[in-house]
Amino acid sequence: MKNKVEAIKGGTVTSPQGFTAGAVEAAIKYKGRPDLGVLYSEKPAIAAAVFTGNRVKAAPVLVSMQHADNSVVRAVIANSGCANACTGQQGLKDAQNMAKLAADLLEIYPKEVLVASTGVIGTLMPMGRVAAGLKKLKLTARGGHLLEKAIMTTDTRPKEIAVKVTDATGTYIIGGIAKGAGMIHPDMATLLGFLATDARVDPAFLKKALKAAMHDSFNMITIDGDTSTNDMVSIIANGAARNRKLTAANGGVFKLALSHVCTYLARSIAADGEGATKLIEVYVEKAKTAGDARKIARTIAGSPLVKSAIHGNDPNWGRIVAAAGRSGAHMVEHKVDVTLQGVQVMKDGSPLPFDKPALSRLLRKDNVSVVVRMNTGRAKATAWGCDLSQDYVTINSDYTT
Amino acid sequence: MKNKVEAIKGGTVTSPQGFTAGAVEAAIKYKGRPDLGVLYSEKPAIAAAVFTGNRVKAAPVLVSMQHADNSVVRAVIANSGCANACTGQQGLKDAQNMAKLAADLLEIYPKEVLVASTGVIGTLMPMGRVAAGLKKLKLTARGGHLLEKAIMTTDTRPKEIAVKVTDATGTYIIGGIAKGAGMIHPDMATLLGFLATDARVDPAFLKKALKAAMHDSFNMITIDGDTSTNDMVSIIANGAARNRKLTAANGGVFKLALSHVCTYLARSIAADGEGATKLIEVYVEKAKTAGDARKIARTIAGSPLVKSAIHGNDPNWGRIVAAAGRSGAHMVEHKVDVTLQGVQVMKDGSPLPFDKPALSRLLRKDNVSVVVRMNTGRAKATAWGCDLSQDYVTINSDYTT
Repeated sequence: MKNKVEAIKGGTVTSPQGFTAGAVEAAIKYKGRPDLGVLYSEKPAIAAAVFTGNRVKAAPVLVSMQHADNSVVRAVIANSGCANACTGQQGLKDAQNMAKLAADLLEIYPKEVLVASTGVIGTLMPMGRVAAGLKKLKLTARGGHLLEKAIMTTDTRPKEIAVKVTDATGTYIIGGIAKGAGMIHPDMATLLGFLATDARVDPAFLKKALKAAMHDSFNMITIDGDTSTNDMVSIIANGAARNRKLTAANGGVFKLALSHVCTYLARSIAADGEGATKLIEVYVEKAKTAGDARKIARTIAGSPLVKSAIHGNDPNWGRIVAAAGRSGAHMVEHKVDVTLQGVQVMKDGSPLPFDKPALSRLLRKDNVSVVVRMNTGRAKATAWGCDLSQDYVTINSDYTT
Repeated sequence: MKNKVEAIKGGTVTSPQGFTAGAVEAAIKYKGRPDLGVLYSEKPAIAAAVFTGNRVKAAPVLVSMQHADNSVVRAVIANSGCANACTGQQGLKDAQNMAKLAADLLEIYPKEVLVASTGVIGTLMPMGRVAAGLKKLKLTARGGHLLEKAIMTTDTRPKEIAVKVTDATGTYIIGGIAKGAGMIHPDMATLLGFLATDARVDPAFLKKALKAAMHDSFNMITIDGDTSTNDMVSIIANGAARNRKLTAANGGVFKLALSHVCTYLARSIAADGEGATKLIEVYVEKAKTAGDARKIARTIAGSPLVKSAIHGNDPNWGRIVAAAGRSGAHMVEHKVDVTLQGVQVMKDGSPLPFDKPALSRLLRKDNVSVVVRMNTGRAKATAWGCDLSQDYVTINSDYTT
């Protein structure tokens, strides 16, 4: 059979067989919106997960780090409105208790549940509301959409995807949802991402495939340089598709498809950054090493001056070169070429004349591309970010008050 | 005689004996404002200077790096409106030519002149206007004020200071001016700073003293995380005060005074960041190492989320801890104490109850202090930054257009 990766229209994390999800209005911080949800695999499953690199790890992260390595993982409980971070011993107890409440409801073990929270740091989880909310929970095969709504904070659009994969091992589905908006920066991108697949996958290979997919997706987006305390991306695989078990030897198409899913979600997060009006895609080419290419791409995508200029349709490309220069990567200034929105503005480290009003008009589009060619090697990398608008400040200057 | 460091009212870079300065309207980018100036020591002098850590160094930086090490340095020529960065071979020739034009005017050697530029990256220096402007230049002993005006870009206030120092070697003056506003981040803080002293100083000691003073001043401020291509802080010492030569053995008071001058200028730059409405002072105490303390202080002062919250008088202190956590420094979460504007909000890693409206009112002041006690050692550091306002974005979204 021919290898194939097809998009599933309206696909989400519950598109793979044997997964259900749901969410309720628990009034954790705000009333009248879903803010607590569960993803569930009807049959025993395995998981892989990656977590924030912040030294301050929220309680749910600490709990999930322990649970993700268990031989069976069947559920995720997630909430918005309270991050349960910087909450000390009580916070840890609360996160453990969230796993237990979900486990009781689903009639599984607490250690089979991952916990994820997002919201304000430094406030205790209102456990009474969590418990009361869970009693109302209904899980359905279309519940992925509702779960996505429950984890959104300042996101303006849901981020969901599912793909159907056919390879030598059989046919299976990978689905996912994510939330981002603020506190987004590598490594790893600060966000929640829940992936699910009905593929049968070797646990060690699942870990490797998730790590590889993260490398070029969630780890290459930046919104504000702030890495959150609560980042977590997990994948649960339940084998319901009955394909031949995926391993490093036969899992090439699975890896590609997982990477596609993660890149789609990561780009969606970048485009929907707090206050963002445009997606910025930074392509670094011909760098000396892959590490250099990644550093340069991420530094440019994260530069407040580059982001502000692009917000204002200002072709102030010198800021792009200055950001590359401070990235710490190898650079030979007189070899650098820069192309902004298809218009080359720098060649061999010297400015090229260009039509400024015309380029400014091109910058008004929703997608802005920056291509920086280092001409010192063969490595390349892509990073995604968004423009910096007055609204970013407005959103973040009265978040708790 | 008793050691003394006294402020000189209305002091500036030409307050030390034997220094003159001036500036003219050369219309390098805008008309009707001084944008080209010179600082000059009437007698032979020595210099020390520190430069941007950006791999992309502007042409004037490359020229000044060569000239600063000469045995005689007597002048600085500086301009705003054009950074002469990313300008290739032509830019280098232009910067060398600026040194020559100043040297011809002052009847000294080009290699005795430092060159400093600030403004838009990627445009060539209008050398005709520079040459024409210099012909109108008048140098006076009060010209430091005018020179400061000539290097301001989006600065809203001049930054000037002079102190009179008395120590065992005699009495001498240290003066300085600086510009900052945007692209401000360690190392080193992106800015221009010109210092002058009539003290007689051993050249090697002058270098060490400047480096030490930078360490706790210009290298501890951050405005937007963008390190510029044009940073330069220089000090010229002409010995006109006829004190006994300052060395490492007898220069303790000189070092303190120089540090005071640099800290004053650095704090002024932080308080006058683009769009800033408040100065943020971050004190990190009881950290494991000095390096840890510095990392934590600078990461907090530079966090867009912390800066946005403080702009909106939002006591969202969790962001402070999250920033500390992503700084890469050693941290034991359950030992951390946080005090915001005098109100303790976290103790031993757990939140303390506090009066939110009252703390929000306290945050309305022009100076906001953040104290983070790590309780894992004895090291400390202070960093300065400013809030992030909608105006930062407005200023930077139409800088060239």
